[in-house]
Amino acid sequence: MALDPARVVAQLQELRELTGDENGAQRVAWTETWARARAWLADLLSDLPLEVERDAAGNDWYTLRGETERAVLLGGHMDSVPNGGWLDGCLNVLAGAEALRRIAGEGTPAVTVRLVDWADEEGARFGRSLFGSSAAGGSMADQEELRRLTDREGVSLPDAVGAFGVELDRALEAHAQLATAAAYLELHIEQGPVLESRELPLGAVLGTFGVERWRVTWTGQAAHAGSTPMKERRDALAGAAKLALAIRDIARETGGGAVCTSGGVTCRPGIVTSVVETAEQLLDQRHLDAAALASMLARAQELSRGFAEEERIDVAWERLWNIQPILFDETLIGLCDEAITEIAGVSHRLPSGPLHDAAEVARAGVPTVMMFVQSLRGLSHTRLEDTREEHLEQSVAALDRLAAKTIAHVAAA
Amino acid sequence: MALDPARVVAQLQELRELTGDENGAQRVAWTETWARARAWLADLLSDLPLEVERDAAGNDWYTLRGETERAVLLGGHMDSVPNGGWLDGCLNVLAGAEALRRIAGEGTPAVTVRLVDWADEEGARFGRSLFGSSAAGGSMADQEELRRLTDREGVSLPDAVGAFGVELDRALEAHAQLATAAAYLELHIEQGPVLESRELPLGAVLGTFGVERWRVTWTGQAAHAGSTPMKERRDALAGAAKLALAIRDIARETGGGAVCTSGGVTCRPGIVTSVVETAEQLLDQRHLDAAALASMLARAQELSRGFAEEERIDVAWERLWNIQPILFDETLIGLCDEAITEIAGVSHRLPSGPLHDAAEVARAGVPTVMMFVQSLRGLSHTRLEDTREEHLEQSVAALDRLAAKTIAHVAAA
Repeated sequence: MALDPARVVAQLQELRELTGDENGAQRVAWTETWARARAWLADLLSDLPLEVERDAAGNDWYTLRGETERAVLLGGHMDSVPNGGWLDGCLNVLAGAEALRRIAGEGTPAVTVRLVDWADEEGARFGRSLFGSSAAGGSMADQEELRRLTDREGVSLPDAVGAFGVELDRALEAHAQLATAAAYLELHIEQGPVLESRELPLGAVLGTFGVERWRVTWTGQAAHAGSTPMKERRDALAGAAKLALAIRDIARETGGGAVCTSGGVTCRPGIVTSVVETAEQLLDQRHLDAAALASMLARAQELSRGFAEEERIDVAWERLWNIQPILFDETLIGLCDEAITEIAGVSHRLPSGPLHDAAEVARAGVPTVMMFVQSLRGLSHTRLEDTREEHLEQSVAALDRLAAKTIAHVAAA
Repeated sequence: MALDPARVVAQLQELRELTGDENGAQRVAWTETWARARAWLADLLSDLPLEVERDAAGNDWYTLRGETERAVLLGGHMDSVPNGGWLDGCLNVLAGAEALRRIAGEGTPAVTVRLVDWADEEGARFGRSLFGSSAAGGSMADQEELRRLTDREGVSLPDAVGAFGVELDRALEAHAQLATAAAYLELHIEQGPVLESRELPLGAVLGTFGVERWRVTWTGQAAHAGSTPMKERRDALAGAAKLALAIRDIARETGGGAVCTSGGVTCRPGIVTSVVETAEQLLDQRHLDAAALASMLARAQELSRGFAEEERIDVAWERLWNIQPILFDETLIGLCDEAITEIAGVSHRLPSGPLHDAAEVARAGVPTVMMFVQSLRGLSHTRLEDTREEHLEQSVAALDRLAAKTIAHVAAA
């Protein structure tokens, strides 16, 4: 049975009808709509000779036994954010399913091939992303915190996942699924403008950025906007404004795809008649190189202390979250480049700004690579998310080609 | 009966006990506590030969008939903000009352002398300041709007003022009170740091600043903080940051006491993982010279358009409020300078950043001057508001001296 990339596009359209509305995709994890999408996927694969299993973290595994236990994994996630796009997560699963169908059609493969539909990649309902893959990867160390999470209706995470047969206390048992994993492959829409701006359909992903996420609090002195001379002021907003501009220079000077973002400033008292006393600034810095990331952070902190001195205000840094860069496997990146070049004539290597399930798998020590397909206008997490059908079909063909190369590579190892 | 400035300090302390709590003054207009303060004032003056009248806008007038109808007015306001200071508004009234007592003790004055306790200067309950003085001055043109105002409990302004005998529809009848006014004098704490930084107790006020108050809305494009390269971004916060810094240069370059304030920036979506799509920035510019103010505004708007172009974002300006500069009377400023110099040995002229009831009276065409007494750390509208007792006493003596000079000036005209 030959690979049929157009069928994947038709399936994506069917899934959109089944689980979306006029505001976009509604496959939020641990909801009925998500369950419907997963059941639909299971049905889609029911004619293939697969072993089907839901693991302790709620991940669904479709296993095609090969000549050895050593397994090549193809992964994605059926869940979406609320009002999400038609591709994020499910393109990966359906492209993987199509590759699995092609492989199964050719008889018993040299190695085992497994499709995984990770549970709750988005974390849209409880604010905790990568639920299933972090359980499988073994990095889910925050179970105490997870136990306390509730959704907007006050439903606790343990209750919500329990309704889908997942016991939070046992979720880490999903780690056993990776025992035989020899490689992990994941296709994803880019969710950024790089491939589009280069007019390229596909790219091989080098790894996921390390992230430093901080709250920077500037403290000056509230003072009457009419009666306080300029030179007497201690304006907290001035510090935030200087840093918001300076981090852009830091990113440019660092290069290598560095990004620095000030996502917001909250001012108090925040009224038109007062100098700002407190400005809370959100800062996000990312780089694929750990040393470059550390240096970007140190530079921002150093500059902030200078700004505080200039403005006679105080500055305090509070880390909200951070993660080290996660580099993908050199060999698999090379195979990915080859597959893309064979399908599209040209490849490109780029880092991933967003995190993905692939990062959890790579952290767990499984050789991993991702393939990106162009996103129109870089939009995702919105119903406006889109990719040209031609590129979608190329992505399915390239993932399949990558799977074939990886199976051969693992079988030869 | 000689002037007794120390008595005013004692009265201020008594009033603080009567109408304040551990959080500060609570004499919010149109409340029981305010009514208690006003009754206490009436009682304080009950032994003097005064005509007492509450006008159609709720202002209380204490009139000492003189040899002519032409009147010198001394003004202030008993109302405070919630958790306010012990001086703002009531120092003016009590210093005026003490001067009135001294004048009354010397027999019938050459001209009529009137003390006015303006109703609701602060606008703390309904967000509309200068209620009584704008009615008397005749500038209260927004009665339709006033009718719709409600406090936090949902009580309407017409109902609240009605409980104190004021019919909103008749409030402008208070304008008749100014028919005989030949001069208006008002003492006030500076509410700024200028006199303190110059180690001066008192200053003559040149007028009140003109004010331009705007909302500046910057519109860029939300984009993923991880996947959007720096050069692809259209960051609304960058525009706001540049303008927040640039307005300080505009103020410094303009000079003449110019002040420019960005009191807050509100970012949307305002999350750590997104470039800012919309930044709403509050802008306040003030100057005593109308042309300088207009030029400051034009310069800020011009720069903002340049910033928008640099950042490939949009900028829109929406005026929230403005008022022209109001200059006080040259002759009275001269008399004020003389009075201050006689009491303190040295005077200083300065503009007022905040608005005051005096601005409404001056706008109505009554020759007006204000006198400022030093504020410690420039603080007001907080229980931390304070002025040295020595300076308070000097301010009472200087206001009394100014009243005497003004009476002589008006009598001679």
